[in-house]
Amino acid sequence: MRKKVAELAGVSEATVSRVLSGGGAVKEETARRVLEAAQQLNYVPSALAQRFALRKSGNLGVILPMLPKVNLFSTYYFSEVLSGIGMTAKQRGYDLLLLFREPHEPRDYANLFRTQKIDGCIIVGAQDTPSEREALAELKQGHYPFCLVNQRFEGEAYNSVDADQRTGSIDAVRHLVSQGCTRICFLNGPSEYSNSEDRLLGYRQALEEAGLSFLPERVLLGNYSRKSGYLQAKAVAALVREGRIDAVIAANDRMAIGLLQGLKELGIRVGEEIALIGCDDSDIVRMTDPPLTSIRVPFFEIGCEAASKLLDIVTNTEDAEAFAVKLPVKLIERASSSAEDAKKA
Amino acid sequence: MRKKVAELAGVSEATVSRVLSGGGAVKEETARRVLEAAQQLNYVPSALAQRFALRKSGNLGVILPMLPKVNLFSTYYFSEVLSGIGMTAKQRGYDLLLLFREPHEPRDYANLFRTQKIDGCIIVGAQDTPSEREALAELKQGHYPFCLVNQRFEGEAYNSVDADQRTGSIDAVRHLVSQGCTRICFLNGPSEYSNSEDRLLGYRQALEEAGLSFLPERVLLGNYSRKSGYLQAKAVAALVREGRIDAVIAANDRMAIGLLQGLKELGIRVGEEIALIGCDDSDIVRMTDPPLTSIRVPFFEIGCEAASKLLDIVTNTEDAEAFAVKLPVKLIERASSSAEDAKKA
Repeated sequence: MRKKVAELAGVSEATVSRVLSGGGAVKEETARRVLEAAQQLNYVPSALAQRFALRKSGNLGVILPMLPKVNLFSTYYFSEVLSGIGMTAKQRGYDLLLLFREPHEPRDYANLFRTQKIDGCIIVGAQDTPSEREALAELKQGHYPFCLVNQRFEGEAYNSVDADQRTGSIDAVRHLVSQGCTRICFLNGPSEYSNSEDRLLGYRQALEEAGLSFLPERVLLGNYSRKSGYLQAKAVAALVREGRIDAVIAANDRMAIGLLQGLKELGIRVGEEIALIGCDDSDIVRMTDPPLTSIRVPFFEIGCEAASKLLDIVTNTEDAEAFAVKLPVKLIERASSSAEDAKKA
Repeated sequence: MRKKVAELAGVSEATVSRVLSGGGAVKEETARRVLEAAQQLNYVPSALAQRFALRKSGNLGVILPMLPKVNLFSTYYFSEVLSGIGMTAKQRGYDLLLLFREPHEPRDYANLFRTQKIDGCIIVGAQDTPSEREALAELKQGHYPFCLVNQRFEGEAYNSVDADQRTGSIDAVRHLVSQGCTRICFLNGPSEYSNSEDRLLGYRQALEEAGLSFLPERVLLGNYSRKSGYLQAKAVAALVREGRIDAVIAANDRMAIGLLQGLKELGIRVGEEIALIGCDDSDIVRMTDPPLTSIRVPFFEIGCEAASKLLDIVTNTEDAEAFAVKLPVKLIERASSSAEDAKKA
């Protein structure tokens, strides 16, 4: 059989052996010809030998943060993004290699390519820190295909797929203003995430457009966890009672839900005394009491788009232009964002 | 440097070259010696060459169903199990290879081992079908290490980690009986999942213990989706109004929540006219109105246990005994399972 493969590929039998045993010094072009000939003759070498010969793993890497004491996949965000990536990879014949990264672990992403664990990688939950920037710069220098999800790095033209968070905040403010709110508070997440910055920019821009002033005391900080929203309830309740705010926009649903629970316990009626808007439109917002108005972010589609565009680059040997996709968001109105008291005032 | 490696390993330089170039006919024992010598001398060959030489991938495979139009990771169940597997694999130095399987795709699990994509595999969401049984039998025959999660196959002693679903149902029935309920309905999932069977067995056993009769008309069937619970609301509401049932146990929270929504729309007060218990104790049950009583299943721990026990086998060359672990469950009482009307009656 090796003889036939050698004839079809136009190489020596020794070369066929070297390729099919998965090693040795063979040019990639030659290896490819041998593998194609083998396949045509239904003589299929092991996948590992194939990958070794072609220097391809067949795996799409997904780098995920391993946060202590947080069950990663439990969050709506990661679940949806991963589902989108997984479905697209599957359709394109790639397997998904999940790579968990501890907060203080060195970020040697390039090594994953050098050791041929992956052919491309999507980085989810990246933060703008010096070590992250260094690791990404190394990927770029090595021409290793990668894509960021929901994160951009000021000054760098990396491939990215994101949602239009800025417009989301603008829509949220406009909606609240239409409800009669004029003293709108913003509960943001950490600034290491560019999405936090984008949302804040939208909030400021929309206030300006509406002729409302931006007050730093109305910007609160959480860390995207439910608990961090819950812990802000006391401060928010005090501001409500003093008549200093009449609405809150939270930068994600988890913080909004924590805040909602805390406000309930303190006797503040959300949807009456104060309007509340979340962000993500995750599966739980329909079940809260009152149901939560939220900005729908197409996380599943973001995952699909990231995998699809990245695999286009991986499977195309030519150097492609960097892409920066922004998918639209949509405000979904529910009972939490009506402000009955503000309307009466 | 190759010369030094050769000396330390006690082999020829040609052998070192064969091993470090990642191929050629070298005994596994010899390859291991060369790699160890190389490492000792800080001369580290590529990970792929190492894996090829040792016939190890360093990957733990996780086989997951790709259900059409269902975003897999969005479900609490898969999220928690995967988090547990991922965290344990990471601690043990393994990467996670996710392998999605379409419902009608051939199940050639053994090939994943033959092609050295994975060193062990965990099968999540398996169903008792002939093609699944065939694929598992092939794994067993090939001595490929694998573990089932939340599924057993009658008559086969496969490695498995599961929850004690039977006891969960027994606890649920006992709790309802203590609330004064005597006409308890059971909303189950498909029988291809052994967990469905286990829950039904527990339900029947506990009815018998309580001196209540088992009536087939009180067993309803869903498919574990929220919609399938919602669609049973009409039938359940009719049974409630005719005084034929006073409680429902749903085999998972999603069906319970769908049913809860449907019953609300039909004007049935859950927690008063009818008691309702879910299963899984997922993150959403605290947020429903009324909050849902549920059976807490330690899915995260199930994932940890499956990965840990399986990797023990993978890293231990000796043949190990098959394991079948069952983790305990716990009823968490909330407002949905009180049956005010039943108490008054």
